[in-house]
Amino acid sequence: MSGRRVAVLGGTGDEGFGLALRWARAGYEVVIGSRRQERADEAVARLQERLPGAAVSGMENAAAASSARQIVVTVPYSGQAEMYRAISEHVAADAVVVDCTVPVAAAVGGKATRVLGVWEGSAAQQAHALLPKGTLLVGAFHTLAASALNDLEEDLEGDVLVCGTRKEARERVRDLVEAIPRLRWVDAGPLENARLIEPITSLLIGINHRYKVDRAGIAITGLPS
Amino acid sequence: MSGRRVAVLGGTGDEGFGLALRWARAGYEVVIGSRRQERADEAVARLQERLPGAAVSGMENAAAASSARQIVVTVPYSGQAEMYRAISEHVAADAVVVDCTVPVAAAVGGKATRVLGVWEGSAAQQAHALLPKGTLLVGAFHTLAASALNDLEEDLEGDVLVCGTRKEARERVRDLVEAIPRLRWVDAGPLENARLIEPITSLLIGINHRYKVDRAGIAITGLPS
Amino acid sequence: MSGRRVAVLGGTGDEGFGLALRWARAGYEVVIGSRRQERADEAVARLQERLPGAAVSGMENAAAASSARQIVVTVPYSGQAEMYRAISEHVAADAVVVDCTVPVAAAVGGKATRVLGVWEGSAAQQAHALLPKGTLLVGAFHTLAASALNDLEEDLEGDVLVCGTRKEARERVRDLVEAIPRLRWVDAGPLENARLIEPITSLLIGINHRYKVDRAGIAITGLPS
Amino acid sequence: MSGRRVAVLGGTGDEGFGLALRWARAGYEVVIGSRRQERADEAVARLQERLPGAAVSGMENAAAASSARQIVVTVPYSGQAEMYRAISEHVAADAVVVDCTVPVAAAVGGKATRVLGVWEGSAAQQAHALLPKGTLLVGAFHTLAASALNDLEEDLEGDVLVCGTRKEARERVRDLVEAIPRLRWVDAGPLENARLIEPITSLLIGINHRYKVDRAGIAITGLPS
Repeated sequence: MSGRRVAVLGGTGDEGFGLALRWARAGYEVVIGSRRQERADEAVARLQERLPGAAVSGMENAAAASSARQIVVTVPYSGQAEMYRAISEHVAADAVVVDCTVPVAAAVGGKATRVLGVWEGSAAQQAHALLPKGTLLVGAFHTLAASALNDLEEDLEGDVLVCGTRKEARERVRDLVEAIPRLRWVDAGPLENARLIEPITSLLIGINHRYKVDRAGIAITGLPS
Repeated sequence: MSGRRVAVLGGTGDEGFGLALRWARAGYEVVIGSRRQERADEAVARLQERLPGAAVSGMENAAAASSARQIVVTVPYSGQAEMYRAISEHVAADAVVVDCTVPVAAAVGGKATRVLGVWEGSAAQQAHALLPKGTLLVGAFHTLAASALNDLEEDLEGDVLVCGTRKEARERVRDLVEAIPRLRWVDAGPLENARLIEPITSLLIGINHRYKVDRAGIAITGLPS
Repeated sequence: MSGRRVAVLGGTGDEGFGLALRWARAGYEVVIGSRRQERADEAVARLQERLPGAAVSGMENAAAASSARQIVVTVPYSGQAEMYRAISEHVAADAVVVDCTVPVAAAVGGKATRVLGVWEGSAAQQAHALLPKGTLLVGAFHTLAASALNDLEEDLEGDVLVCGTRKEARERVRDLVEAIPRLRWVDAGPLENARLIEPITSLLIGINHRYKVDRAGIAITGLPS
Repeated sequence: MSGRRVAVLGGTGDEGFGLALRWARAGYEVVIGSRRQERADEAVARLQERLPGAAVSGMENAAAASSARQIVVTVPYSGQAEMYRAISEHVAADAVVVDCTVPVAAAVGGKATRVLGVWEGSAAQQAHALLPKGTLLVGAFHTLAASALNDLEEDLEGDVLVCGTRKEARERVRDLVEAIPRLRWVDAGPLENARLIEPITSLLIGINHRYKVDRAGIAITGLPS
């Protein structure tokens, strides 16, 4: 398995598809995972239409998980636990798993501008609890708007706050961040900080609405250049 | 509308059906609400089989809500917001609404022994926020096991902790509690206390499992008799 | 160190003193811990006045912790983290630590009928995170009213919900519960359940106020006898 | 009372003093509030030493609150409730109150990189609950580093996320934000969004530590210019 391969589980949704698109354009070999093979195939076709010649394939989630050492999970919070239980046995011991879930209240019929309190502290920590002990787990890409990811005409703006079980885990996703032009990788510390980061997405959803934009993001100021 | 009529929305589920059964036996006129008329009818038939001659009818949730001044809502947390939006315009200004929801993590694929943190503080407060301003809203019946409610051979044990928007609202459900033999109504204070009460259900689910029983409940000790 | 010795840290407060009193009466050798030796000594004198001949001694918290294999911590939430940092190196590897802390909002100037959300999930889990890895940690005795503990004329009522890091840890405090006449030990499961148990104290504080009593407690109904 | 007067309660602390300094330099008439007159006076002297001729005076908190229509409260979370109870009767009906509190776990002996869950949802909402009904209340300035505010040689960077009870309330603090060169006012929506904003400070404290800087802040990308 090459370091240039990335599996995007839930890659048929807007967020996952947008990430897959960006990474495919950057030369990654992308595996789109879905619950059903047909839906994965359909997303692959859509992606290749936009990026002819891109190295993309489609698999069921478990197979996609086992096919790559970089596994990015983009599912709604309502399906997150089920997803991790489905792939748990298929994650390689040396893989890094990137969770992008935000526990928006919309998962239970509430607003996307509100979050639920997650028993484990955050969606990323819930993911970690469902994976084999010792799995490298990172929370990242929460604040990138799907619309911006899917708009290949425009560069993205802003930072990607990366928290994770270990410094090593966070470093492992730096290439994935920097493969998308203009994005900056920011070390946001231990995995528990996902509790501080995930809710920012709800804030941005409200800001998008209030300012009538579709891609508000965040950046950290005051860092060394 | 008579004070002896109670609508049980979500009355086709185990908890709601058990409450409907108990109240029908106590002589209440019971309206079982469901999303679909057929399912309500089917629950009515089941109930009348167990209690021939009981005064029970079935309606869609909105109609059921508007038919009674005592409205009891028993739905899984995942469907709670949708339910309240559906009935919001159909709740009479002088009705009291009794919410029995527990925000178990099972609503998003987690465990029933864990709870989610609700933005509004509790499921009952979320319900209140979705109803017209000033609606009398009570949280109650969270800790009664569905199995015990459905077992007409046995009396129930334990207390019903009742919190609500006003003392008057809490008093309004006293008859519903005392109609079920041996249950005691306990004034558990303002609605915000639902945050303290709802999680007890998750505790009891774990105790049921650990002690291999199916109807653990709670009682308050040290009250004046 | 004997199994009949128990250290009560924060034993100069109402709750801790009441527990110390009960255990001294049951024949335990009690060590009262305090931040300052003088205050511990003063509590010892008070206790011996009520129970002449009781086996009680006073120590600073760290010394008290290292003197017993059963360590009960009863401090206000505002001082809990500091307490555990102070004793962390003094807890024997085979000791069981019993945390009784409730994260009432009063810790930051709010009401005792409200709780704070604790980062680690509960006060007991925060305690666990501050102790050496592998320490047996139990949450218990949250719902016993200090007034009842201190009133030796009356038996206590109700159950003690015991959650802890391991079944073995929970079993280790059974004697401490049963040494107090009429109390029942209830296995409340893993330590994380402290999140479900601690808030019950805030509920009882409100019930005391509403019913004009001073010792409301809780009991679990429906358990095998 | 002039629109160019602002009271900074807790203005003797680093954050409050820094804000007072910036607003004094921008030509505001600043009232520094403290629990004790002497400490307020001392802060006034310190400020005038740095900005000779600045229009600054010192008062006890309650007097300071009643002296201005713009009241900024910068206290540690552990003292927040007490502060608002102290000033509640002294806030003019047409005043806007700006709460800057972050409920860091340090308030109860924990880490500043972690937050407590506030019963009311956020520190700002707790403040609102302690003030007379209808008070215009805004949460803002959480993410400005005290070190940067106090360093008059350097402009600040980043955005000030402003949430509040009403759009009007949020607009009322725009001048206070823009009086500090280079800062941008961002409409962060209803007061409840304070729950999403306050924790960002804990994130920045960790980033400061990790990047060995002292003034990490945040900016929203993708807004119309």
